[in-house]
Amino acid sequence: MGLTIGVDIGGTKIAAGVVDEAGTILETSKVPTPPTPEGVVDALAEAVRTVSAQHPVEAVGIGAAGYVDDKRATVLFAPNIAWRHEALKDKVEQRVGLPVVVENDANAAAWGEYRFGAGQGHDDVVCITLGTGLGGGIVIGGKLHRGRFGVAAEFGHIRVVPDGLLCGCGSQGCWEQYASGRALVRYAQQRAAATPENAEILLALGDGTTPGIQGRHISQAARQGDPVSVDAFRELARWAGAGLADLASLFDPSAFIVGGGVSDEGDLVLDPIRKSFRRWLVGGKWRPHAQVLAAQLGGEAGLVGAADLARQG
Amino acid sequence: MGLTIGVDIGGTKIAAGVVDEAGTILETSKVPTPPTPEGVVDALAEAVRTVSAQHPVEAVGIGAAGYVDDKRATVLFAPNIAWRHEALKDKVEQRVGLPVVVENDANAAAWGEYRFGAGQGHDDVVCITLGTGLGGGIVIGGKLHRGRFGVAAEFGHIRVVPDGLLCGCGSQGCWEQYASGRALVRYAQQRAAATPENAEILLALGDGTTPGIQGRHISQAARQGDPVSVDAFRELARWAGAGLADLASLFDPSAFIVGGGVSDEGDLVLDPIRKSFRRWLVGGKWRPHAQVLAAQLGGEAGLVGAADLARQG
Amino acid sequence: MGLTIGVDIGGTKIAAGVVDEAGTILETSKVPTPPTPEGVVDALAEAVRTVSAQHPVEAVGIGAAGYVDDKRATVLFAPNIAWRHEALKDKVEQRVGLPVVVENDANAAAWGEYRFGAGQGHDDVVCITLGTGLGGGIVIGGKLHRGRFGVAAEFGHIRVVPDGLLCGCGSQGCWEQYASGRALVRYAQQRAAATPENAEILLALGDGTTPGIQGRHISQAARQGDPVSVDAFRELARWAGAGLADLASLFDPSAFIVGGGVSDEGDLVLDPIRKSFRRWLVGGKWRPHAQVLAAQLGGEAGLVGAADLARQG
Amino acid sequence: MGLTIGVDIGGTKIAAGVVDEAGTILETSKVPTPPTPEGVVDALAEAVRTVSAQHPVEAVGIGAAGYVDDKRATVLFAPNIAWRHEALKDKVEQRVGLPVVVENDANAAAWGEYRFGAGQGHDDVVCITLGTGLGGGIVIGGKLHRGRFGVAAEFGHIRVVPDGLLCGCGSQGCWEQYASGRALVRYAQQRAAATPENAEILLALGDGTTPGIQGRHISQAARQGDPVSVDAFRELARWAGAGLADLASLFDPSAFIVGGGVSDEGDLVLDPIRKSFRRWLVGGKWRPHAQVLAAQLGGEAGLVGAADLARQG
Repeated sequence: MGLTIGVDIGGTKIAAGVVDEAGTILETSKVPTPPTPEGVVDALAEAVRTVSAQHPVEAVGIGAAGYVDDKRATVLFAPNIAWRHEALKDKVEQRVGLPVVVENDANAAAWGEYRFGAGQGHDDVVCITLGTGLGGGIVIGGKLHRGRFGVAAEFGHIRVVPDGLLCGCGSQGCWEQYASGRALVRYAQQRAAATPENAEILLALGDGTTPGIQGRHISQAARQGDPVSVDAFRELARWAGAGLADLASLFDPSAFIVGGGVSDEGDLVLDPIRKSFRRWLVGGKWRPHAQVLAAQLGGEAGLVGAADLARQG
Repeated sequence: MGLTIGVDIGGTKIAAGVVDEAGTILETSKVPTPPTPEGVVDALAEAVRTVSAQHPVEAVGIGAAGYVDDKRATVLFAPNIAWRHEALKDKVEQRVGLPVVVENDANAAAWGEYRFGAGQGHDDVVCITLGTGLGGGIVIGGKLHRGRFGVAAEFGHIRVVPDGLLCGCGSQGCWEQYASGRALVRYAQQRAAATPENAEILLALGDGTTPGIQGRHISQAARQGDPVSVDAFRELARWAGAGLADLASLFDPSAFIVGGGVSDEGDLVLDPIRKSFRRWLVGGKWRPHAQVLAAQLGGEAGLVGAADLARQG
Repeated sequence: MGLTIGVDIGGTKIAAGVVDEAGTILETSKVPTPPTPEGVVDALAEAVRTVSAQHPVEAVGIGAAGYVDDKRATVLFAPNIAWRHEALKDKVEQRVGLPVVVENDANAAAWGEYRFGAGQGHDDVVCITLGTGLGGGIVIGGKLHRGRFGVAAEFGHIRVVPDGLLCGCGSQGCWEQYASGRALVRYAQQRAAATPENAEILLALGDGTTPGIQGRHISQAARQGDPVSVDAFRELARWAGAGLADLASLFDPSAFIVGGGVSDEGDLVLDPIRKSFRRWLVGGKWRPHAQVLAAQLGGEAGLVGAADLARQG
Repeated sequence: MGLTIGVDIGGTKIAAGVVDEAGTILETSKVPTPPTPEGVVDALAEAVRTVSAQHPVEAVGIGAAGYVDDKRATVLFAPNIAWRHEALKDKVEQRVGLPVVVENDANAAAWGEYRFGAGQGHDDVVCITLGTGLGGGIVIGGKLHRGRFGVAAEFGHIRVVPDGLLCGCGSQGCWEQYASGRALVRYAQQRAAATPENAEILLALGDGTTPGIQGRHISQAARQGDPVSVDAFRELARWAGAGLADLASLFDPSAFIVGGGVSDEGDLVLDPIRKSFRRWLVGGKWRPHAQVLAAQLGGEAGLVGAADLARQG
């Protein structure tokens, strides 16, 4: 199969792109995410038509947040769009006249990294995406692990603190409350409120208040040695690394890939995560250690991965 | 392939058995586990020779606690025997003149249940073994998931309580400290010490002291309504079920199989585990639920599973 | 000194009452709590004038949520009213022409119970108030323990779960997130959402939805044996009792008094708390045990206590 | 009253000293702690006779680990000596012919610091002793707070981690498992095992193994910048400071005094504790902060304090 289209449905925009067999994006189109479920299908179909006008595409892969069923056809539940048992594959196929594959967005991103990014050369990789929340994907023996019902790899919601922080999912102590971009901001804000004299650089980058602290301020301040910002990254890494150690006990991959906005900071965040991973890896003295790698495809991993999954049918 | 031998190396005894293609054990031999690494190999070889004397066996599968490498040949580390990078496959093959496969004992037990026990009819199952500790095994798409380095499915050592109980593995807060036969005894002893008036049945079954409380007393007392014993099972189930919910988020199997001595109690322990599983399953309203099944092969799951793995080569 | 006035400033209403030396309320007046700091002072002064019109009162005691300084004159910080370093004593004295004592509302309630309620006959009592949140007060050797700076006995904000639930105070894992009326509702709602078939009585008492579950429904349903409601009370008691055990290790009082709306349920909630207290009391075998008593003055403890503190000057 | 004798019964030795009204020790005698309860009383009486031979002493104060009753006469329970309801006061008075006061050793040490050490000038102080375990003492309004039954201020055994580390007391998650000399060694050993390359200085100070790491090695290595040792102190401080913040919410003293062997390291450990204390102090923006001071009397605080308590009768 030649060219395919990958679609990434995000909370604020929908991106569609024509992707070739080497994972190269030939053309993209982005539109704002409409507020209604029907509007999303319309916008999605329109974006597909736009990018396919000049290219002989053969299939469409869609990455969407939420639970996608085992047939990769129906969105069982989406957190940001009011989709409940939404037959997305059928609806889009009717609109665009191409075969459609639907996949969880973090799964699609993991697949993209496995095929064309940091995971090349590995057969067994586990990806975590540290964005606003924490998503993940699993490749075992060169195949995406979707689970029996299609809802595997929901890393963000394993419980790491009994009776811990409330999560949007209704549970408590979910990993994404402790390892995500949102957690990083909370760590920085709490520390800046308690010891503002250790957050002067950080506070100066925003509006001077602790509620005004944003993720990009923390990265920039940490690079300048701001004690609170460095400590916030250390706390994030403490939880991220400990969780990877658990995933090593469970999946035993040859590599972990860390993606998402937080990973754009590279070794600033990856080195402490690697250290924490080694700290908590059970039996680390007696077993080969998985590598902990930075993702390579940035925000396009999901689109590229979805396109490749569509190619594989 | 016809008959094979399965070997289960336990902390106190080594069991070898001839097993046919249907998982039926034709003959078994048991010997005490010798104290030295060399002694174990000797005893193991002797047991294999004993049971194979009357049967045309073609291969040997060995289940052993610890890390087994990706070639299923070398025990990287064993907790109970002083094996460190022990080339067990080679040593035993030289002694018995048959092809040998080495596997982690909990993996072998999971495979046994998948092939001939509670897992029949499922392609994706996750087993937990609640024995003295907590072991596990994973079958994905009908294949045993061993991980890239052979050390996957070490469920007992995922961290469920940060800064929690010390574990023999050197880490803290490991799941097996909260969900295992040993944990059950601790729950009962702590509660009996604090409120002996609620543990009269339980204490009467042993020597009357809290240190004298044993696992079998707790089961028996719970069946008679002893409040402390019922509460100890409830606490065990609280942790076991919450952990299964996490495994559902990660692996999404169609069934969980709960084995080990604790599971011999059947619904006394399984019903509270199922309830706790449902309580903690994230997104339970929107996804198909995995079944939580009692293991069917009892203490022979490991032996039978190892024999079958040897058959498959 | 003869009659004094006690004032209880709540989030929704201000209650003022004339109280005699035996703790009997002779007359009360209640007005809604105004939205502005100045408005509260006005309303408070007016309420004092109303109830004192017919009685020869000699002093005023005011109980208010928040930090009150060591001179019992200034509210350093109030959570519900925008008071920051508010010189409440001076302002009210100018308005009403009587000596004024300001006290933290939970301290005042503890004092009321010590003098005229469940604490009579004890010299060393620790009170906890399980209302919407969790407040407390300490009497040592017959004296209210205010601390060096006036802000002792802030029980609600000791940390019982590291990295636990966010609290309105900005910290995490505070006791009141686990032991309070609000926590009780959360426990019931979470359980009802996961296992609605065990909450049929509870759900029928409200609007049939889990968000519609209220505290009074839980009490009523628990009395009828609703499993989720009984379990919610048990969870509340687990945390309340464990915290009392810690307070016993710290303060070693002869009695704990449990007040607040939750305690209105009497033994429904007190018995599980007592059990949990015994369960977690360190060294319980070797030390005399404090009693755990239900408060006796209900919602008037604060008003009566404040009046008595004013009498004592 | 003029001179009195203070006795400190430790796990390895018994120290007796003649102390004047200014807290100065005029003469001391030390003997090894005998293994039997009777032996301890004999040795204690002998030590008292030795030091009193040349001095006109008027009373004896004894500090002992364990629960001492409200009459300061009977040891209800001692962790290191087989005393259970031991009438120590009577037995010693009969032997030495002087009035005797018995006190918990950490209480005695707190009193010593309050009277002659870091607590001078304060009326409300809370002491914690970071020795092998964690002990404490409370002075409120210039009086030792013993509690109704004599067993207050058992700081070491408040629960800071639900389901946390087992404690010798039979409970779990006790503060002394996270903030004590023993905890410090565990932190260093765990980290050195996981990342030996960050513990080179530390390991070189001992026998090169992680089990060989001792407390004094950690202090020395931390001063030389050994990363694991610095991190171990930081972890200790994290827990010590968070606990002090809780004690501030409860007692609201004007000063905390940190004693015990760990505190000998001065600002190496006190500065991180102060930082952690500020980080976790609830409402820190709106309330005066207690000082966190290093103890001044070292290992003699208990002896001096016991002598002074005897003087006060």
